[in-house]
Amino acid sequence: MNKQILFKKRPNGVADSDTWELVSNEIPTINDGEVLIQQHYISLDPAMRGWMNETKSYIAPMGINDVMRAGSIGMVIDAKGDAPFKVGDCVTGWGGVQQYVATNGENWYKVDPSLVAMTTYISTLGMPGMTAYFGILQEGKIKEGDVVVVSGAAGAVGSVVGQIAKIKGCTVVGIAGGKEKCDYVVNELGFDDAIDYKSENIYRALKTKCPKGIDVYFDNVGGEILDAVLTNLRMRARIVICGAISQYNNEGKIKGPSNYLALLVTRSSMQGMVVMDYAKNYANAAKEMGMWMMQGKLKSREDIYDGIENFESTYHRLFTGEKNGKLVLKVIED
Amino acid sequence: MNKQILFKKRPNGVADSDTWELVSNEIPTINDGEVLIQQHYISLDPAMRGWMNETKSYIAPMGINDVMRAGSIGMVIDAKGDAPFKVGDCVTGWGGVQQYVATNGENWYKVDPSLVAMTTYISTLGMPGMTAYFGILQEGKIKEGDVVVVSGAAGAVGSVVGQIAKIKGCTVVGIAGGKEKCDYVVNELGFDDAIDYKSENIYRALKTKCPKGIDVYFDNVGGEILDAVLTNLRMRARIVICGAISQYNNEGKIKGPSNYLALLVTRSSMQGMVVMDYAKNYANAAKEMGMWMMQGKLKSREDIYDGIENFESTYHRLFTGEKNGKLVLKVIED
Repeated sequence: MNKQILFKKRPNGVADSDTWELVSNEIPTINDGEVLIQQHYISLDPAMRGWMNETKSYIAPMGINDVMRAGSIGMVIDAKGDAPFKVGDCVTGWGGVQQYVATNGENWYKVDPSLVAMTTYISTLGMPGMTAYFGILQEGKIKEGDVVVVSGAAGAVGSVVGQIAKIKGCTVVGIAGGKEKCDYVVNELGFDDAIDYKSENIYRALKTKCPKGIDVYFDNVGGEILDAVLTNLRMRARIVICGAISQYNNEGKIKGPSNYLALLVTRSSMQGMVVMDYAKNYANAAKEMGMWMMQGKLKSREDIYDGIENFESTYHRLFTGEKNGKLVLKVIED
Repeated sequence: MNKQILFKKRPNGVADSDTWELVSNEIPTINDGEVLIQQHYISLDPAMRGWMNETKSYIAPMGINDVMRAGSIGMVIDAKGDAPFKVGDCVTGWGGVQQYVATNGENWYKVDPSLVAMTTYISTLGMPGMTAYFGILQEGKIKEGDVVVVSGAAGAVGSVVGQIAKIKGCTVVGIAGGKEKCDYVVNELGFDDAIDYKSENIYRALKTKCPKGIDVYFDNVGGEILDAVLTNLRMRARIVICGAISQYNNEGKIKGPSNYLALLVTRSSMQGMVVMDYAKNYANAAKEMGMWMMQGKLKSREDIYDGIENFESTYHRLFTGEKNGKLVLKVIED
């Protein structure tokens, strides 16, 4: 059987047990030109919250009763006719939260699981890593000597943003929740400093740890942290708006940045980005990041939970922060 | 005697009669290398509100007992030794709200009052016009066919922004308060359309009047209008943050744009600007705008009030909107 998580009800605020339903359906059959993929790992991302809203966004909203949208990786276990992959291929794509997928291969890519762990292909070499790579290099336009601040610093995107900025010769300060994550980004990932937003006054800490101000801020969280960063910009600073996880579960309006007029004072910019715009350059980025990984300059950490039944509880870790690295769910059963 | 408006007390919220004091002092004497300027007109600008705050901005805050800061224009009536100007020269600079200034000429510029009205040199050919010119061309990066929206459309900056955008082949929609101003920007200035924010639902009006969305928004006002524009951006739109007059008199925090995540969805940017960065190119801009004025493509309208004693009541018109065009105060006595 194919266990699936179906999207049942748009949440108002935080998702709950009414939001999804776990069902078991027949494993799909395939036609000529198609493959059957047994999925191993599902990527859990803050963007999932946005996909469940009805409002127009950078991607179509999910429909009720759809399989919950998710990036994934698995193995081809059957192929018919002139199929794009062969049995035994490891492939990554948008498989959704389910155990099996039948597809003609569109938007699926073959990867080599002997080079890095399968989970890395949906983490640092997947969408989060691509977001970090293009976000900090193309949108943030970092150059040597820049003071770079990144929020969600221990997370899937932020950890890669900070490490790339270090590779490029920047001074990097990460913002994360809790001592353990802060220690991790400094001691394991080589950030210059970290701010624990749960125990430190973020305004004061930014002044102390970025005494010359901030050149580039990569924002994953929005809210109060974005406002604090705005008070400490250098001239012609760049803020890359990648997400706003602090605001995704609001029942009412989201909190806009009250200090946005700092953009005027410092002649700075706030630029939104969506990683898909860079799709045609993913392969080159993966090659460069893969090289950095082999050289030990870029580390990837995934926090893997087990069992499609645990999707909901694992999903909530995205927003509570109770995770260590990229959140991944193993859906293949032993 | 030299009547002066002195800055006496930093306002919390709206300025009031305690904010300034009208005094009479001796007309200053000049030394070798200096000139005495009799000021004719003072420029009143929303930025004045910000200069009175204690907080660091793009320019030093005013000190208590300073002559109120203002752009101005006047005639040289005395000159000593190797002075930068001669008697009879018409000069513009930062003369402040007073009738006479003694200066060595630094940051003062000679202009020709026979070409356009003196008031035009502190309006369309002065700081507001420069702000419009560099803001919409350099920061907004308009190109033919763009849909351009400008708030404060009947004002000193917005009216020039919209006219330049029309000259460059854009579709221009102005936002202004009241039917008269809306009629003015469409019928007199040639904007394609206008929205009266006082009587129309701004969200709906933007959808109706910019059905394809907005490429460039030049923002003078902030607040609810900025939020409404954010809901109707085209892909890769540019928002130029020039000011936020709706927020300048807030006693508490200013209202940040709740819909700023539209920047992400549409891959758009919000860019702050300060006109002074373009100072070395003012002369070229003035030449080009002067030509447009002579060709009848660019109109300038000043709303002139009389008497330095009326500074406070005239100043308030900046925020109530009870003015028609660039607000100017005549300080020379007949």
